[in-house]
Amino acid sequence: MIIKLERIKLQTRKTEEAINITAQVDGVVQKSGVKNGLVNVLTTHTSSGLLVTEGLPCLEEDILTHLSRLFPEDENYHHRRYLDYDGRLGFNADAHLKSIIGGVSCAFPIENGRIVRGSRQTIYFMEYDGPLERTYLIQILGE
Amino acid sequence: MIIKLERIKLQTRKTEEAINITAQVDGVVQKSGVKNGLVNVLTTHTSSGLLVTEGLPCLEEDILTHLSRLFPEDENYHHRRYLDYDGRLGFNADAHLKSIIGGVSCAFPIENGRIVRGSRQTIYFMEYDGPLERTYLIQILGE
Amino acid sequence: MIIKLERIKLQTRKTEEAINITAQVDGVVQKSGVKNGLVNVLTTHTSSGLLVTEGLPCLEEDILTHLSRLFPEDENYHHRRYLDYDGRLGFNADAHLKSIIGGVSCAFPIENGRIVRGSRQTIYFMEYDGPLERTYLIQILGE
Repeated sequence: MIIKLERIKLQTRKTEEAINITAQVDGVVQKSGVKNGLVNVLTTHTSSGLLVTEGLPCLEEDILTHLSRLFPEDENYHHRRYLDYDGRLGFNADAHLKSIIGGVSCAFPIENGRIVRGSRQTIYFMEYDGPLERTYLIQILGE
Repeated sequence: MIIKLERIKLQTRKTEEAINITAQVDGVVQKSGVKNGLVNVLTTHTSSGLLVTEGLPCLEEDILTHLSRLFPEDENYHHRRYLDYDGRLGFNADAHLKSIIGGVSCAFPIENGRIVRGSRQTIYFMEYDGPLERTYLIQILGE
Repeated sequence: MIIKLERIKLQTRKTEEAINITAQVDGVVQKSGVKNGLVNVLTTHTSSGLLVTEGLPCLEEDILTHLSRLFPEDENYHHRRYLDYDGRLGFNADAHLKSIIGGVSCAFPIENGRIVRGSRQTIYFMEYDGPLERTYLIQILGE
């Protein structure tokens, strides 16, 4: 059994951003030496997410717009915290809620050394509270 | 270690539909020869989903109705695309958004050759943009 | 390959409640003897959930409040059922819908005998229809 774990760093540039990480995941799978198995991809942060959808800029905008429609920044949230990076009291409950309902991980089969996914399935790292340096994990299990 | 991957085809009949696939998943697990392990079930399409809930027709209706309440078809989405099957510009951003928040996969343990799940946990393939021929994956890892 | 499955019982105390189960999951991982692998945690009930977010009481309140804002108890749901524990017709479609969009499972890597997760990632069992005795599963695969 082969078990590999990669920690990938990512500098996000905006408050909210959908970053296509499909090529990185494919690359890690291909160089892992695993022929058949499973790849699990997950964020390590609670104000970011990981999700699978079609890889289109217009859809990236729709996701961010409509998650914000469901969880507006200026709702009367209980959770407010001091944000180190801008030296003021901040509000990121909306980011946590988007993370929860958009999801934080995905898992795909590996067959003959390649990830098995639908032709339109694109893997996105979702920044909901940036810009920040982020880390996501790619774990591969198989043989 | 045994690793098996099945691709299951499914013809959906409606624009939106919740299809109970629990028996198929159980069957693939039981004939896999895996005694203990994990089964991962996932859709390969970004305008469909895969989720676990109680197996009741009234609840199927509630899921479809209330996902459509959150993401109405006639919102002002950025994503519009030409739909081959009806020869016109179409709108399926709502289908992608439902797929993202309803989820696209589930994973259960296998013990003594059988899937371990709660008595009411039913596995659904969710069509949000049909009717279409769809494929979902059942992967089994174990021994 | 080591494969272990634990069933954990949990008595919830409120109609809706977010219960931090991170320490229990860590404990099961550490005593499993698995050095490298995967842990999958999942609820066995369709009116409860399992999710990962920051471990803060104010955020627990925000999650429950805002899932209820999206799926109010008094919406006109199709699904109504008799509730044994209070002897009357009940409404828990909202609980099922919260379970679906909040999610029912999480999976993390294990490395050197310890679960790998971000410093703020806290694992919650989510009760949406209590109080009830609940069971969740912790499965560990690895070596």
